Amino acid sequence: MNEIDELRATVEMLAEKVRALSDQVEIMQLVAQYGPAVDSGSGTAAAELWTEDGTFDAVPHLRMQGRDEIVGMVHGGGHQSLIQNGCGHVLTVPHIVIDGDHATGRSYALNIRWDPDADRFWVARVSANTWRWERTPQGWRITERVNANLDGTAEHREMLAP
Amino acid sequence: MNEIDELRATVEMLAEKVRALSDQVEIMQLVAQYGPAVDSGSGTAAAELWTEDGTFDAVPHLRMQGRDEIVGMVHGGGHQSLIQNGCGHVLTVPHIVIDGDHATGRSYALNIRWDPDADRFWVARVSANTWRWERTPQGWRITERVNANLDGTAEHREMLAP
Amino acid sequence: MNEIDELRATVEMLAEKVRALSDQVEIMQLVAQYGPAVDSGSGTAAAELWTEDGTFDAVPHLRMQGRDEIVGMVHGGGHQSLIQNGCGHVLTVPHIVIDGDHATGRSYALNIRWDPDADRFWVARVSANTWRWERTPQGWRITERVNANLDGTAEHREMLAP
Repeated sequence: MNEIDELRATVEMLAEKVRALSDQVEIMQLVAQYGPAVDSGSGTAAAELWTEDGTFDAVPHLRMQGRDEIVGMVHGGGHQSLIQNGCGHVLTVPHIVIDGDHATGRSYALNIRWDPDADRFWVARVSANTWRWERTPQGWRITERVNANLDGTAEHREMLAP
Repeated sequence: MNEIDELRATVEMLAEKVRALSDQVEIMQLVAQYGPAVDSGSGTAAAELWTEDGTFDAVPHLRMQGRDEIVGMVHGGGHQSLIQNGCGHVLTVPHIVIDGDHATGRSYALNIRWDPDADRFWVARVSANTWRWERTPQGWRITERVNANLDGTAEHREMLAP
Repeated sequence: MNEIDELRATVEMLAEKVRALSDQVEIMQLVAQYGPAVDSGSGTAAAELWTEDGTFDAVPHLRMQGRDEIVGMVHGGGHQSLIQNGCGHVLTVPHIVIDGDHATGRSYALNIRWDPDADRFWVARVSANTWRWERTPQGWRITERVNANLDGTAEHREMLAP
């Protein structure tokens, strides 16, 4: 192998590593947008984190499919009442496993609500989250998110197993 | 274009991507230092996360400008009493948008306080955070942070909109 | 220096930066696995985040050394009772300082527990965390984690100083 071929091989290996890093950081940043989107009532911004027909399963009471249903949830009475009262949807950085153009992940979501009478917040939910993401021409998007309260239900905590 | 020129072009594209990734990770790490700095009472370490004349607007009661005022807040009676009683300033990884040598971001900050009588913590604040960062010769620094409680005030939650 | 040597030098500098970024992201992802492992009761998965003889000091009541003791904690009565009742071990992204094959870090861990009677969670602990990591042939692993409640104890909050 001549000098240029050798260097080209090195560059190709490096490009692979950079692509893997970009995927990780891009997915971290995708997830970091969920809370700010819903807590500011930006339904479209929230929905666009998903693929067109992605699903969001808020166990047990609400299963959304497609961007319109996610917009509907954010603009709906239940969510609007939450944020008008004062609420933070605080998500952690997920553990991410990438396999080509697909990825899966596990993390937490806290739902913390303002109590004006007590002048403090209360923690309404700490949920196990599992994610499926897909590489699209517009970047990584969510194809499936499951959010289930860690209230002692065995299947909920088992979602977090590797 | 000859072989070397082609390879050089590939390397330049890669260098651009690496620079973008470095910026993202460096800013994540900048923000990750705030909590540990203030909760250990390290005023100078906290202040050095900002540029010399950076601002920190802790809505509504305290607006700091410049490192001295940030040191003053950390070393001041209010903050010292908080950490001596037991307190965690828990910040999330922001969504970061980089534009050359400037960047903006959105995230959350939790202020959680120990209650020795109840033998548990209480959540005093869940705040919307907006950030402006600047690339300096010493690395990325904060030029502006706004921290406003998500207590139902419309302008506070609207800070989190994209 | 000829054209190829010059390009090779550029590629080597880039490779250094990519290695530094990979280290940062890999350690973030290592830490992101702790909560999901223990909250799903996956003792072996949790223990494998440590080196064979790594330590986990849960100040003040429990100091574990080696993977078997970490597995023992996760499978033990105390932890099992926590997760069967409903619990989230929510960790933040640490500030990470890498020095060759070793790294140190500072972050937070929240221990939040379900209260079925109150239909909400309560925050049992907000802990200062310090970490030591080591590069092994299998990737980065924890060699030491110290977890100490931010309950006003001076040594606990001082763990978070830079």
